[in-house]
Parts: sequence; structure tokens; C-alpha cells
Amino acid sequence: MNSEPRLAQSLVEPALAEAALFVESTLDALLPRTVGPEQRLLKAMRYAAIGGGKRLRGFLVLQSGRLFGVDRRALGRVAAAVECVHAYSLVHDDLPAMDNDDLRRGKPTVHREFDEATAILAGDGLLTLAFGLLAEPDAHGDPFVRCDLVARLAHVAGHAGMVGGQMIDMEFEGKMPALPEITRLQRMKTAALITYCCEAGAIMGKASQPLRSALCNYGQELGLAFQIADDLLDAEGDAEAMGKKTRKDDGRGKSTVVSVLGAERAHAQANALAAQAVRHLDLFDEKADLLRAAAEFAVTRRA
Amino acid sequence: MNSEPRLAQSLVEPALAEAALFVESTLDALLPRTVGPEQRLLKAMRYAAIGGGKRLRGFLVLQSGRLFGVDRRALGRVAAAVECVHAYSLVHDDLPAMDNDDLRRGKPTVHREFDEATAILAGDGLLTLAFGLLAEPDAHGDPFVRCDLVARLAHVAGHAGMVGGQMIDMEFEGKMPALPEITRLQRMKTAALITYCCEAGAIMGKASQPLRSALCNYGQELGLAFQIADDLLDAEGDAEAMGKKTRKDDGRGKSTVVSVLGAERAHAQANALAAQAVRHLDLFDEKADLLRAAAEFAVTRRA
Repeated sequence: MNSEPRLAQSLVEPALAEAALFVESTLDALLPRTVGPEQRLLKAMRYAAIGGGKRLRGFLVLQSGRLFGVDRRALGRVAAAVECVHAYSLVHDDLPAMDNDDLRRGKPTVHREFDEATAILAGDGLLTLAFGLLAEPDAHGDPFVRCDLVARLAHVAGHAGMVGGQMIDMEFEGKMPALPEITRLQRMKTAALITYCCEAGAIMGKASQPLRSALCNYGQELGLAFQIADDLLDAEGDAEAMGKKTRKDDGRGKSTVVSVLGAERAHAQANALAAQAVRHLDLFDEKADLLRAAAEFAVTRRA
Repeated sequence: MNSEPRLAQSLVEPALAEAALFVESTLDALLPRTVGPEQRLLKAMRYAAIGGGKRLRGFLVLQSGRLFGVDRRALGRVAAAVECVHAYSLVHDDLPAMDNDDLRRGKPTVHREFDEATAILAGDGLLTLAFGLLAEPDAHGDPFVRCDLVARLAHVAGHAGMVGGQMIDMEFEGKMPALPEITRLQRMKTAALITYCCEAGAIMGKASQPLRSALCNYGQELGLAFQIADDLLDAEGDAEAMGKKTRKDDGRGKSTVVSVLGAERAHAQANALAAQAVRHLDLFDEKADLLRAAAEFAVTRRA
């Protein structure tokens, strides 16, 4: 996988940048804006969701939907919903009672910029908004599809996915979980939503079960590879390029694939996962080349 | 309205008790239970959602659905979803960064019994679960109906409803908002979800627009009446009967209808709202008698 990292980069970076612009403008249009006594909340929701982030998740929704010719406006809406869920999870994970982080995407975290109560509420508002975006007709003409999008999102975001993963992450602090336990945690905390992004395009395109499963499997391996790459960047990267504090895991006594396997074997593991992810796309023609390149990009990126 | 409070009480109390049992057992069946490292989360979600509360919201879902002959199992599921959303809102509102309450439904609040991080995550998990419960086929056979249930819940629970209302409630602390501002806050924070409960039965029963609107109007007035009654109980009630701290509003510099109008005029206002609520039910026959009685009960209850 590592043979042509620059090719992957040259393919993926402009597509990611284009997706980021599209997702940002969609979020800007969909996020509320009023001048009532609740405007502090709405400002915090915008602050959390707009203006930053790689938008890898939105990109994956757009690309997976493109495989089935799904309408781009609808994809933008679903991508925005996913980015709202991602943003909510960052806001809540950053809270003093959780990871207590001051910096995110190169700016103060929401509870630092506003306050703790506003951050909790902004997260709640973004999560709730996401479900509303998916349930309304603009997300898809077929209500079966919309229900599927909502039900699957609730599954990957809830106790069996992201929320459960964050709980486990906190429970493991200062402990020495084994690799399978860490992998289960990462599947729930990170890979579940990334998998959902890839599945969403298939749901919206009413893909056959084999194609939908292939995209799920791709997303699952990609998500795990992405998380290991993230942990490597945390261990080796510099805070300025990352836009957030680095070497946090060590300081907090968090076990990661990197701390258990060491950097070299973790690199190899991430590459192996990315290669597996690409193999799951064998059912697709060259339309899936950007997704293939994204798997490589996920493990070779520098921020 | 106050002429026969004991009649309303004798009608509503057994029906509320029966609804509470049904909603509790449905929640018990629907809430997750596992023995992984995330069990702390699942215990906290159960602790927050099961074992307490009047279940007025669940009762309203059951009663509004009964008007249209909606399947009771499906109503139980939707009632459980609404109670999950209500429980999540209490857990987050009770957090130290918000209202910092130690007691709820006669037991320690979730962040007291567990810890703050677990309370935040348990709230997130309950909110997310609610949307999943509504989107899955067991909630209703028609996906249009399920989407409607999800979209409306997202609306009343989000920035334009409960989350926005809680933000305004915090913004108003120590200030002197006028009555219309307080009313708008209460519409968002409390009445929106109560309105949803009444609308949910109409949605599930595919009621005509006039009947659906009538139930919404009933719920809106009932919700406002209920909140004034709650504020009166806070000002006048005793903590033991309420199962939570009383006289909180005063201590926190919160303005309520009671603090603005005084207890006597607030009582009159609550009664007037309850009477208005009942008038919105004129389109319904005696099948709606329990809802009529519930409006009176809401303003004459002692806890």
C-alpha cells in the first residue's frame, strides 16, 4: 500500500477539499441562525460544526453515493448530518468531565470558547438536528430509505457504537487492555460512524446486499486503519499541524494499538487494514478509485 | 376547572399508574443490558430511565393513540422513546454545569450516583436510542409515519424546542424576563415534548389534520399549565413528596410565571390554560375523557 503514497495523495486531497467545501456550505445552509435569547446555543452549534476538519466522513458519504448515482443534494444533506454527529461527539468528548481538551481543529474547544453548559447543549442540539435532517423528505424521496438511514445512524452513534466506545475509552484509562479489547473499542468509537458513511451511499442508492456489505466492510477496515494512523500522529506528530494537542494518549494513560504494538508494528497493521479495505472494493469498477485512494491516504496523511 | 378535582384525580390516577407500569416494562425490555466494559453506561441509562416519574408523557402517547385505535405495543414503544428523551433531558439538565441538582425522582441524580462523564454519555445514549426506536418497523408499519415521528421529535427536542429552551433558561438566570419571554421558554423547554406526545398518537393513527391540530393545541396548553403547576409546587411543595429539591427557582434567580404573577394569579392562569386545553378536545367524544381529566389533574396534583 505504501508504494505510491503520493499518487493517493494527489488524487484524494483535491477531492477531499472539494467535498469539504460542499459539506461546509451545506452545513451553513442547514444549521439554524436566529436572534433570540437562544442565539448563544446556535452560535456554539455553528462554531462546533462549521469551519474545520478534514470532512473525511462527508467525503465518504458523497463518494459511496456516487457509486450508485445518488442525487448530490441529498448526499450533501446526509453528509451534513453525519458531520453534525461527528462534531457533537468531539464537543462532548472534549468536555472537562471527559478528555478535558482545550484545542480542537486549531481553535479553542466549545466549552473553552463558550462555557460547559453551552457545549453540552450544542452537542445535544447537533445530535438531534442530525436525525431531523435524515427523516425529512429532502434526504431521500423514499421513506423506507430515510428510516433505514435514521435507524442505522442511531445504532452506530448510540450505546452499541460511539457512545459505548467513549464509555469504554474512559473505563480503560490507566488500565492495560489487550489488543482485541482496544480493537473493539475503536470499532465502536471511530469505525462505526465511518462504516455508516460508506453504508449511507448504498442505502440511498438502494444497492444490492452484496454491494452494501462490501462498502460496510471497506468502511470498517478503513475506520480501524484511520484510528491507528490517528494514534500514530498523536504519538509522533506535532500539535501545530494537527490543530489539537498531541501526545495526549500517553499523558492520560490511554492504551492504543500504538502503545501496545509499538509504532513500527502499528504502522504495518494500519497498512494491512487499508489494503484489506481496498480488497473489499473488488466488486466495484474504477468509479471506486477515489475510495481506494482514500484508504491509502488515511494511513499516509500527516495531519 | 377546580370544581371537581377529586373526580379528575380518581379517573386519572389509576390510568396514570397503569400507563406507568406498561411504560416501565416496555423500557425494561427495550433498554440494552450487556456485560462488557460499557456496562457502566448501560446501568446509568437504565438508572435514568427506569424506576420513577409520573410517566405523564407516556400516558399521553397511549391515550392519544387510543383515540384512533392504534396498536398498543407500538404505542408502548413510542411512549418509551419519549420517556427516554425526557430522561435524557433531566440527566443533562441536572449536571453540575447546568442546574447542579443532587436529587431526582427521590434518588441521587445520575452524575451523583455514577459520575459526570457517565451522566453525559447516558443522556447521549438515551437520546440516540429514542430515534432508533422510532425508526424501526416495530414503531409502525408505515415508514412515512415513522419518518414523521422522527422528524417531529427532532424538532421538539432540538434547538427549536427542549435544547433551545434549556439554553434560554440558563441565559435568563438572574435576569428579569417578561411574561411573554417566560412563556416562550416554557413552550420550548416543556410544552414542546408534551405536545409531541399528544401529536404522536394522531400521527400513528393517521388522523385528519383538524384532529391532529386539536391534539397539538391540547398538548400545548396542557404543557404550559403543567409547567406552571410544577413551578407552584416548587414554590409551595415539600421536597419529600416531590422527590427533588424544592424552592430551587428562587435560590437560582430563575424567573417563572409564579415569580412574575404571584402564586394566586399563577394558579388562575394554570386553571385557565387547563380549561382551554379541554376545549380543544371538543372534536372528540367520550373516548377523550381521560385526556380531559388529565388536564385538570395536571393543575391540581400535589407532586
